[in-house]
Amino acid sequence: MSLLGKRVTERIKPSAITEMMILVKKHKAISLTAGEPSSEMYPVDLLRETIERALRDPGILSYYPLSTGITELREWIAEWMKEDGLLPQSYGGENVIMTNGSQDGLNLVSEAFIEPGDTVLVENPTYPEALLAFGKEGARFVSVPVDKDGPIVEEMEKVLSQNKVKLFYTIVNFQNPSGCVTTEERKKRILELASRYGFLIIEDDPYRYLRYEGEHEGSYIGLAQEEDRVIYLGSFSKIIAPGIRCGYMVLPSKIVGPMGELILATKLSLPAFLQRATWELLRNIDMKAHLAKLADTYRTRRDALHRFLQEKAVPQGMTYDLPKGGFFIWARVPWLKDCFDFAKFAVLEEKVGVVPGAAFYPDVLTADRSTLRLSFAKVPPETAEEAGERLGRALARYKETR
Amino acid sequence: MSLLGKRVTERIKPSAITEMMILVKKHKAISLTAGEPSSEMYPVDLLRETIERALRDPGILSYYPLSTGITELREWIAEWMKEDGLLPQSYGGENVIMTNGSQDGLNLVSEAFIEPGDTVLVENPTYPEALLAFGKEGARFVSVPVDKDGPIVEEMEKVLSQNKVKLFYTIVNFQNPSGCVTTEERKKRILELASRYGFLIIEDDPYRYLRYEGEHEGSYIGLAQEEDRVIYLGSFSKIIAPGIRCGYMVLPSKIVGPMGELILATKLSLPAFLQRATWELLRNIDMKAHLAKLADTYRTRRDALHRFLQEKAVPQGMTYDLPKGGFFIWARVPWLKDCFDFAKFAVLEEKVGVVPGAAFYPDVLTADRSTLRLSFAKVPPETAEEAGERLGRALARYKETR
Repeated sequence: MSLLGKRVTERIKPSAITEMMILVKKHKAISLTAGEPSSEMYPVDLLRETIERALRDPGILSYYPLSTGITELREWIAEWMKEDGLLPQSYGGENVIMTNGSQDGLNLVSEAFIEPGDTVLVENPTYPEALLAFGKEGARFVSVPVDKDGPIVEEMEKVLSQNKVKLFYTIVNFQNPSGCVTTEERKKRILELASRYGFLIIEDDPYRYLRYEGEHEGSYIGLAQEEDRVIYLGSFSKIIAPGIRCGYMVLPSKIVGPMGELILATKLSLPAFLQRATWELLRNIDMKAHLAKLADTYRTRRDALHRFLQEKAVPQGMTYDLPKGGFFIWARVPWLKDCFDFAKFAVLEEKVGVVPGAAFYPDVLTADRSTLRLSFAKVPPETAEEAGERLGRALARYKETR
Repeated sequence: MSLLGKRVTERIKPSAITEMMILVKKHKAISLTAGEPSSEMYPVDLLRETIERALRDPGILSYYPLSTGITELREWIAEWMKEDGLLPQSYGGENVIMTNGSQDGLNLVSEAFIEPGDTVLVENPTYPEALLAFGKEGARFVSVPVDKDGPIVEEMEKVLSQNKVKLFYTIVNFQNPSGCVTTEERKKRILELASRYGFLIIEDDPYRYLRYEGEHEGSYIGLAQEEDRVIYLGSFSKIIAPGIRCGYMVLPSKIVGPMGELILATKLSLPAFLQRATWELLRNIDMKAHLAKLADTYRTRRDALHRFLQEKAVPQGMTYDLPKGGFFIWARVPWLKDCFDFAKFAVLEEKVGVVPGAAFYPDVLTADRSTLRLSFAKVPPETAEEAGERLGRALARYKETR
């Protein structure tokens, strides 16, 4: 179809994460690939019950007159975030818009703000599906490296002095893939840069409630207060279930109207009964206990994988910092020259799936090809030993054959 | 937010239908506005049951590895359409992609094909939310008038000889708003034009299964056979419920891959468990009986509204052809100079909501401002008399005061 436009012919490339997940499934490998929670942790019974309850009112199965989502859930989210000290006092449910997961939010931001050729500043490394959403609209990328405390501010200043940046995309807690957490102090300095250089901050925060030790940080949107500089993206995918596709964005009042019209043009509305069911679930679940259970489970998984990586993969040259939350161990194997090739080798030869780290760099040419992303979320402790074993063996064999 | 791009600052305008629906709700008026089915007709019990069944496998609440939708439902749809003679023999489930209602399909087509300045040919009048989706990507519109048998081919040839058209958007059965049905013979002639002038046909068909008399027509996609010229958009919104947001598109094999990547970039995936539930519902429902029940109900409603319009509104000068299916009576009141103003008057003064017909014209300047769209779908016979009464009175009073 020669009629296809630039988005699909030039701008969008196949996703390395999806390709790897499909390969893992096909070869029935142990998967360290998926950035998704473990299905035993979904509150399925409660969800089933609340959906049943939501459907008692068939009117909820009609088109919803507000494309922005149901009022009760939007208000619940604003309250919840306020209790957590994340929102300016003047914000309320009217600043919240429901999305089909965070990716829908990323796409809406991209469609509302990006014109072809606009410059988007991203972290290096960063989440590749965000690059897809911005790249789709013709964004050009510049990047700032991160260390364990988030984006390196001095490096950011250099980039900003040389480029007119429209927006900065950042994953603030347990960043995907590096695991870094942006400190309050860095956020303040970056907000100053945003004011000085006039750019918007897209604060992506799906992993916030998956902290396994230490204290919660504040948010950009809370720090910015009345300055309309920040759009916050949240999601119930990691703490309830990805399949309810229930994400949200929090944004300055003056953008809510235009964003609602954009949603109407792209999908009219989302399944409102799922939002009603989610709202009832959130009101009825003991959220503190639920989050504590998630933290216990994933902390145990992280520690188990850590132990067997120490035993089996570290002797092959692997290094990493243990993350304090989220789903990923971001590893480096200094002698590894092509992580894409190794990832294929590992799944085909040893039936263990990892994601090549170079897929997370906005610039392919300067990507660190010795990196790997290892997700522990879906690996129970009893599988971790076998996963570590296979990965260690894959590294040893791969090293020999090259 | 001066950083907002052209889509929201220039291209997208507020939706007249949505504004009218909100006004009707606020003033508790009788509504002839919504293009949606009646909620008593939703198979809610069966849906509740099949969702419950789908959720017995918590894995279905994970991200789905295929952004295009679950295989079983895609295959069911292909089979169903084949039995109806709508698809080329070589097409199968792999040609079907699930969408969040038809609007999501319209948007995906627009994003995949439209570059700013591209020309889209539409019917006159047509569905305004389709104009939003195409306009969002910077489409320029040209139009072809319709009569009761669909687009007038001679007029279409004139437009094509003067414009390089990239795609033609058409609602083939019981068109929204005019109620026209494109005949097989017109479809053949228009397909020839598509080959000659090299454009794509977007065949939107949400009302097909809401026929109240007469025989079904064939489809463009079936007639085109192996020529990759047509993308078909279908939906369960009108025959199951809009709120499950379960639409689909059928497209040539070579576009499925790029379209799947576009879906990944815009939303990763849709709620797969809703697709599983819909599939189980479709397998378990007696579809023939269900569609017959829908036809009986809506035929009765159409006839009741017809009767009271004849009594109350026709004496005020209203004219229309009775549609053979769908949800709408497309009326004209020749003395009416501003249907927007009248629609506001009717809801505020007589508490009856109608959609101003001029909202359905791609070109505001040449829009017929004496038209009104009256939906009978949500008006039970016992309300039709009151609706006709109020509308007649609104017309009489409005005529006096101008």
